Amino acid sequence: MTAPPSEGTSNGVKPRSFCNKQKNTMKERPKIIVIGGGTGSFIVLSALKRFNLDLTAIVSMVDDGGSTGALRDELGVLPPGDIRKCLVALSRSSRTMRRLFNFRFRKGSLKGHSFGNLFLTSLEKITGNFKNAVLEASQILAIKGRVLPVTLDNTRLFIRLTNKKVLRGEKHLDSYDFSQDKIESVYLKPKAKINPDAKNALHEADLVIIAPGTLYGSLIPNFLVSGFSKALKESRAKIIYVCNLVNKPHNENFSPYDYVSELEKYIGGKAIDYVLINNRKPPRNIVLKYRKKGEEPIKTYDIKFKGGRLKVIRDDLLSKNFQRDSNYSDLIRHDKEKLAKIIMRIYEKKL
Amino acid sequence: MTAPPSEGTSNGVKPRSFCNKQKNTMKERPKIIVIGGGTGSFIVLSALKRFNLDLTAIVSMVDDGGSTGALRDELGVLPPGDIRKCLVALSRSSRTMRRLFNFRFRKGSLKGHSFGNLFLTSLEKITGNFKNAVLEASQILAIKGRVLPVTLDNTRLFIRLTNKKVLRGEKHLDSYDFSQDKIESVYLKPKAKINPDAKNALHEADLVIIAPGTLYGSLIPNFLVSGFSKALKESRAKIIYVCNLVNKPHNENFSPYDYVSELEKYIGGKAIDYVLINNRKPPRNIVLKYRKKGEEPIKTYDIKFKGGRLKVIRDDLLSKNFQRDSNYSDLIRHDKEKLAKIIMRIYEKKL
Repeated sequence: MTAPPSEGTSNGVKPRSFCNKQKNTMKERPKIIVIGGGTGSFIVLSALKRFNLDLTAIVSMVDDGGSTGALRDELGVLPPGDIRKCLVALSRSSRTMRRLFNFRFRKGSLKGHSFGNLFLTSLEKITGNFKNAVLEASQILAIKGRVLPVTLDNTRLFIRLTNKKVLRGEKHLDSYDFSQDKIESVYLKPKAKINPDAKNALHEADLVIIAPGTLYGSLIPNFLVSGFSKALKESRAKIIYVCNLVNKPHNENFSPYDYVSELEKYIGGKAIDYVLINNRKPPRNIVLKYRKKGEEPIKTYDIKFKGGRLKVIRDDLLSKNFQRDSNYSDLIRHDKEKLAKIIMRIYEKKL
Repeated sequence: MTAPPSEGTSNGVKPRSFCNKQKNTMKERPKIIVIGGGTGSFIVLSALKRFNLDLTAIVSMVDDGGSTGALRDELGVLPPGDIRKCLVALSRSSRTMRRLFNFRFRKGSLKGHSFGNLFLTSLEKITGNFKNAVLEASQILAIKGRVLPVTLDNTRLFIRLTNKKVLRGEKHLDSYDFSQDKIESVYLKPKAKINPDAKNALHEADLVIIAPGTLYGSLIPNFLVSGFSKALKESRAKIIYVCNLVNKPHNENFSPYDYVSELEKYIGGKAIDYVLINNRKPPRNIVLKYRKKGEEPIKTYDIKFKGGRLKVIRDDLLSKNFQRDSNYSDLIRHDKEKLAKIIMRIYEKKL
């Protein structure tokens, strides 16, 4: 299977160039890296896909819940779930093919499994390793750009709590009751080293975006990979953090500043240049739905940022899809258009 | 995903034309139909794929064992297994993609499932029906020709025994002990009507090949579909039956004549013009392996054919792969090259 030759997106929209001087030459396309897990990276990658960019997704590899967790436990493969989401985000193949990758079985012995996860798992078994599986899937899905696992080592996330208890597995972030015990630190075991392709990509990047995502589950696990933070700090690229919109129970009352501080603690130094903060409150009915799950929108004004080295950009970044049709979506998500616009303005040094 | 424009096969071999007068025009390519189930059709389709032919596989739809049976029972889909084998036979996509479709999970809750079956099942759920699923998969696999389910109705094979007992499900052909009770007749329930695309294909065909395959499980279930035998008899095409090589326990001691007779009983009249019979004995060590499963090579000389209306072609049709390397294969199979040669000679009226 080969990728279609066109650089157009599958919805027929022609790619736009924000950078006139870099138009029309593959070599000079801005090299942009998106670091994260699945959902947040999906949004940022989808947002940037229609521009003439050299896009790379670097994806954390500690997911061990649900379909992904079952495949890891039963078949010993690397976690496919977040990789799958990023592949779909960058896919130029048919809508059916993209829907197929996200299709989830609802009944029977396959219940809960995502087809795309089974696709990547089967490819890993056939090709002999996960790297080749992702490359094959990238071709089959005709993706624009690259999707790189942050590491190709099989590792798990360990979560040390303030009561000194240690939880094994990223899945506990969703299931453990954090009302008494807070997270003290997280680490990987066994140690994992950076995927050399991800290292090279960081060295060549013009812009690095840390996507929104579960702080300890999707973002920090990238920095825990040996060699990653070093490569990030050596990069000449500006680093943008698209701040989360909602606090999970294990990040209760975290402010944007707390997110940045915690990220930089694991990066090992001041690295982030821009933080993008949403300043629009989600509708109350949606907030109430989130509250039932113990999740709260992040407070958008944070006094500690005043006068700091960071460039803080506050704007209405919220997707309004849920307002148009309550059946369409009840999720608090970033608006792709708004995100893309700000990110490209930063790249052009207009912000 | 779109099929590559080339008519070449994926192994780089250029298609050959046996019919000079029909060279180079799509319209005039010989229209050849292969009727059967999975394994036998795979061999005939693979054999014919490299020629410049308009190939159509018509596939029986009563499989309900193994991975296919589990998917039918749990998810209510139509049987994907035999369709998958025919798609792979005609695929021009990469070797990895073809291996992926045939990949089978060996462990865990997915044990026994073929990836290609999950692919077709997921596509059926997404596109809303099996016909569209097969069309999408045909594009994704870049197949040369068409694969058509003989019916799009959800039906099961019922097997009436000489002791008047009735078995529900094609899977019993492999598991039931037929040493005492023989098969009296088979029928479908509920009734199934012919896929209109298959009917049209039969009307337009230049040559129809009944592939080798399980008589009551893969071949006759096609003729049981309402409208099929009528369309077959109305066709101006010559009909070739590539006789099986081995008798399953439920066809114990069947001769080639018995196969033809039973097929024509269900077709409802004299329809077969040519029967291709292998006259080479398989090696004894392989025969012994088959004997352990209650299977025996079919005796190749059949007195009843003498002076009949049928053109009987006896030749060495056996694949010799198992002789070259005992680890490579221990299956008694037709040789693709030899089959293709004889079939094309029949088409050219040289036999």
